[in-house]
Amino acid sequence: MPTIKILTETELRQAVPLDLDAIECVEEAFRSLVTDKVVMPPILSLPVAEQNGDVCIKTAYNPKFDSFAIKISPGFFNNYKLGLPSSTGLMVVHSSLTGIVQGLLLDNGYLTDVRTAAAGAVSARHMAREDAASVAVIGTGVQARLQLKAICLVRPIIRAIICGRDQQRTEAVARELSDELNIPVAATTDREQAVAGADIVVTTTPSKEPIIKAEWLQPGQHVIAMGSDQSDKVELEAECVLRADVFAVDRRQQSAAQGELRHAIASGVVADSAQFPELGEIIARGTGGRPAAESITICDLTGMGVQDTAIANLADQRAAHMGIGTSIAS
Amino acid sequence: MPTIKILTETELRQAVPLDLDAIECVEEAFRSLVTDKVVMPPILSLPVAEQNGDVCIKTAYNPKFDSFAIKISPGFFNNYKLGLPSSTGLMVVHSSLTGIVQGLLLDNGYLTDVRTAAAGAVSARHMAREDAASVAVIGTGVQARLQLKAICLVRPIIRAIICGRDQQRTEAVARELSDELNIPVAATTDREQAVAGADIVVTTTPSKEPIIKAEWLQPGQHVIAMGSDQSDKVELEAECVLRADVFAVDRRQQSAAQGELRHAIASGVVADSAQFPELGEIIARGTGGRPAAESITICDLTGMGVQDTAIANLADQRAAHMGIGTSIAS
Repeated sequence: MPTIKILTETELRQAVPLDLDAIECVEEAFRSLVTDKVVMPPILSLPVAEQNGDVCIKTAYNPKFDSFAIKISPGFFNNYKLGLPSSTGLMVVHSSLTGIVQGLLLDNGYLTDVRTAAAGAVSARHMAREDAASVAVIGTGVQARLQLKAICLVRPIIRAIICGRDQQRTEAVARELSDELNIPVAATTDREQAVAGADIVVTTTPSKEPIIKAEWLQPGQHVIAMGSDQSDKVELEAECVLRADVFAVDRRQQSAAQGELRHAIASGVVADSAQFPELGEIIARGTGGRPAAESITICDLTGMGVQDTAIANLADQRAAHMGIGTSIAS
Repeated sequence: MPTIKILTETELRQAVPLDLDAIECVEEAFRSLVTDKVVMPPILSLPVAEQNGDVCIKTAYNPKFDSFAIKISPGFFNNYKLGLPSSTGLMVVHSSLTGIVQGLLLDNGYLTDVRTAAAGAVSARHMAREDAASVAVIGTGVQARLQLKAICLVRPIIRAIICGRDQQRTEAVARELSDELNIPVAATTDREQAVAGADIVVTTTPSKEPIIKAEWLQPGQHVIAMGSDQSDKVELEAECVLRADVFAVDRRQQSAAQGELRHAIASGVVADSAQFPELGEIIARGTGGRPAAESITICDLTGMGVQDTAIANLADQRAAHMGIGTSIAS
């Protein structure tokens, strides 16, 4: 059997920073989903209720790549009691030709963080105003930070505001991001205030109740809703879907089952037969996802296996180029 | 993060031979599925038609164990052209408490072979006559060999017959098994002849057409149909289900989608609402799955994640006891 290349989280952080290449790689994944014969089965979900946990498995075969990834994401939400992270996991990389395992990306969820943030930037690139200058981020976790960083790579952002439930913690995150991105970053606990005046709004929370009201949305805004990726999560009031001139999703079926669209359908605000464009379709069409500067646009991101396969391929290429990783014979 | 223990195929072959402990472990898994709060989601299947391949992912959480396995099984059926095995893969072992990856079993499908053969033996133990002395095996692959070995561990087998499409190859397999098991093993290409007079019949082929006729089945026989684990496979003529006094399955939903039961339903021989006992129910009930010596019994095995979690736990225990494996920090 061929040997297996193992890359650790430390190596993967070196190999795949959140940069324009990562964003380009994820953009290509979205496009490929529409233009190539990608096979992307429904997510496998294993709930472990006793530990307030679950495991999600995502994968996609993309004929453009020599390999495909199977991504295993455990989320165990009592882990903080043990001083351990909730979200962990790895990617297993298989040869597209033989199915044989050729790589193990022991990333503890890092590559998921990168490809998730990159998807937000891809949506901003195709749906936000070109001159979008300000971002409101709801949430103070890893994605709150990474989404802001990623958006700054694709739009001329000059200021941001972070909104969390705890003022002190939010201020700490804001200071950190301000230092890193070299732009003023304000902190607030008032969501309505955060949204007001922002060109781009990103929601990054695990909320189970809507946290953004439709009436808060203003002409010209683009909303990236990336928190909801499970059927019990929701960030946007259902009426936001109606208020938007364009409401896009990453994958219709997934969004209707696990995203904001699920909540909008369950609330009776939209029919479950309603068709919304996929971000990949907007990218492939090439005419942009924003009808006018004053439009309100929303992108509902649930996270897809095709992003995992793309970022895993990028990681493999970079690691090979850098000569890092450990080979093991199985 | 905790370190990850890696075990290679060579180490796993040492640690988990096909023995009574492996059979006991799989029997407990079947029982647990009925008596414990096991969570076993539907199989994730990724077809890769361009390479005549697919990947199946199975998993189950069993509260009896400290860990659960996610088993990735690629089957790429053009691999023989490259001199590589079709069936490969690995198991990823996660802590039941935290979801964090704690082990990688790089078994290239070996543990699947063991747990699959063990399931056949479990079915023989609970459904075949106690004095079953002869076995007919249809097929000449890895499972043909392992099923016979496993059955010999639980029933007083004194002779066997192997049935393949190629007489020479079949004779070679028969000789090998005869030497290993120290019983006479005949070879034939005639399926009807193989079935005639056998106390236990095991079908181990990837056939897409029925290869066993209902009229061949004789009172007292137990049939283990383990080949069909995909919706395009079938080994038993649909009427076999009616001819059986007891037709058991490993998992109703799976068997109706991917096993012999699927074919019987599709043929209109049984209603899709028809209820058949699961092997785990027969084990848990403790009264045996054979009403009388002269009954005809069939067990339709499609392979379950709960078996994978069980055998992975056995492998971990044995490896820890033997002090084998390599630890890696992620």
